[in-house]
Amino acid sequence: MTTQSNAADPTVAFQGKKILITGGLGFIGSNLALQLAKAGAQITVVDSLIPQYGGNLRNLHDAPPGITVNIADVRDRFSLRYLIRGHDFLFNLAGQTSHMDSMTDPFTDLDINATAQLSILEACREYNPEIEVVFASTRQIYGRPQYLPVDEKHPIKPVDVNGVNKVAGEQFHILYQNVYGLRTRVLRLTNTYGPRMRIKDARQTFLGVWIKQLLAGQPIEVWGGTQLRDFNYVDDVVAAMLEVASTPATLGEAYNLGSEERISLRELAELLIKVAGQGSFTVREFPAERKKIDIGDYYSDSGKVHAVLGWQPVVPLADGLSRTVEFFRQNLQHYS
Amino acid sequence: MTTQSNAADPTVAFQGKKILITGGLGFIGSNLALQLAKAGAQITVVDSLIPQYGGNLRNLHDAPPGITVNIADVRDRFSLRYLIRGHDFLFNLAGQTSHMDSMTDPFTDLDINATAQLSILEACREYNPEIEVVFASTRQIYGRPQYLPVDEKHPIKPVDVNGVNKVAGEQFHILYQNVYGLRTRVLRLTNTYGPRMRIKDARQTFLGVWIKQLLAGQPIEVWGGTQLRDFNYVDDVVAAMLEVASTPATLGEAYNLGSEERISLRELAELLIKVAGQGSFTVREFPAERKKIDIGDYYSDSGKVHAVLGWQPVVPLADGLSRTVEFFRQNLQHYS
Repeated sequence: MTTQSNAADPTVAFQGKKILITGGLGFIGSNLALQLAKAGAQITVVDSLIPQYGGNLRNLHDAPPGITVNIADVRDRFSLRYLIRGHDFLFNLAGQTSHMDSMTDPFTDLDINATAQLSILEACREYNPEIEVVFASTRQIYGRPQYLPVDEKHPIKPVDVNGVNKVAGEQFHILYQNVYGLRTRVLRLTNTYGPRMRIKDARQTFLGVWIKQLLAGQPIEVWGGTQLRDFNYVDDVVAAMLEVASTPATLGEAYNLGSEERISLRELAELLIKVAGQGSFTVREFPAERKKIDIGDYYSDSGKVHAVLGWQPVVPLADGLSRTVEFFRQNLQHYS
Repeated sequence: MTTQSNAADPTVAFQGKKILITGGLGFIGSNLALQLAKAGAQITVVDSLIPQYGGNLRNLHDAPPGITVNIADVRDRFSLRYLIRGHDFLFNLAGQTSHMDSMTDPFTDLDINATAQLSILEACREYNPEIEVVFASTRQIYGRPQYLPVDEKHPIKPVDVNGVNKVAGEQFHILYQNVYGLRTRVLRLTNTYGPRMRIKDARQTFLGVWIKQLLAGQPIEVWGGTQLRDFNYVDDVVAAMLEVASTPATLGEAYNLGSEERISLRELAELLIKVAGQGSFTVREFPAERKKIDIGDYYSDSGKVHAVLGWQPVVPLADGLSRTVEFFRQNLQHYS
């Protein structure tokens, strides 16, 4: 894997270790599982394969024997209580990610992103208090930025139900570290992209549906276009997860991921078309029902995680987009 | 009622209005209901009378005919959907308040303080989008103060499960205002005391159990003693609720209540004994299991609500304590 810092290869810490990944058939979870398998870990991925979510069996169809797939829902308390035992690490990635779905079905989002997180932590406390935990949170908790780039001190003002519930999910993780000494930490992800992302629709990221449109020969539909965003290639995110999981100094802390390469949506569409060597885009106004939960410009300050881990993203956006387009050209029928 | 500001009597706005109060048999809810009845409102109080919570039928035993009691739990979605209809105001006070209980039974706290709040808001959205809503939140959401007095810009870092869930509850209220235009606002209460408070134990406030100890002729047990706190007499809190509910400028905002009269727990015990003309106290070390979720010194900056409403507490602590002790002397058998 890509070395993210001056530290030794972080994957060494995982050799022979037992790893549980919730949401492990999803985009980031499956990439993480594949990296960990290369590092010689024994991995159990837990995923419920809810059709609207990121889980896709194709993501691990050619997985090495070190990966075991266990279909289960994180809301299923008894299964999780069993599964949590005997593992050295928990990468807790399962979540409802769609902002729009969180508004139309707020209770499901609450059950998955808040209630199930509490029950996972209770299970850790009771059955495996030594397990090292990484919780995947989101920049969505900050809401509309009051300043840029957004650091971890920025006020927490979510603009959708998903954001409120992710706040609760991460606060439970921090709390269980502070009160019970569980070995938890939180990463607040910005837009993540790469092979194995959901491209059927925009539920994971709008960039997914852009790639689908591009490869289907349709114009990419850009909403607005001037909003600035930052992006992380999935390998960079996986590297951050591995490093943070094996660094005790990160216990009880929350860290932004992000990139100093910031780009407007219109420029991103142009770049995507350029690296793909095909495609076109149209710009349309932001739909009214989405505007209310839109956050405007957003990009992260990830200086805090850089300071503690030396982490910074190493895959330039153009390279990452190129690799992503190439992956989906080869695998389109399994993802669209 | 006590006039809190230079504005006209705020109770005028409630004459002939239909009011729903969740947690209405509890401490603050029942005091609010009695004030509103005097103002000529028609009140329905909703309460589930969970034995560990604040609801007590005695609180409204001599209530005027304008008050109807409806026993129901805010987790009961169908009942709330029905009850929410046809009301002009909702004072949404039902909650689990014990910090310790939120740690030993975190799911019940989550169900009441977060999930039920979401379902109440969904019910408002669907069945009564014009209803004026006041949500009772708590200073507990701030966690251990990073500076004093604590204003609304202070970071939100709850130190117990109750705090996490109250954050979610209030964020849902603010969100449903921002996105759907519901007429919600949030008050973050500090320690509130007065007639009809729970004194059986410390689940509502330690001051309750102190009064019980005092009137039973037992020494008051002070934990620690040097921690600074601020207190609001219940009539002042009720006045703030009435004013905020009838002020459109407060929509979508969260306000601290508080007092500039700050006092250490030891001094508070001394003052209580002085105004009661009886009693003694002992100081013991803070119990280990509570220390982890203790917040140290806390007092609020309530300048924001003062600026918009002119509100400030008018009942001095000594007077409020005196009235409270007198109430419980007359009614002890119904509360201990």
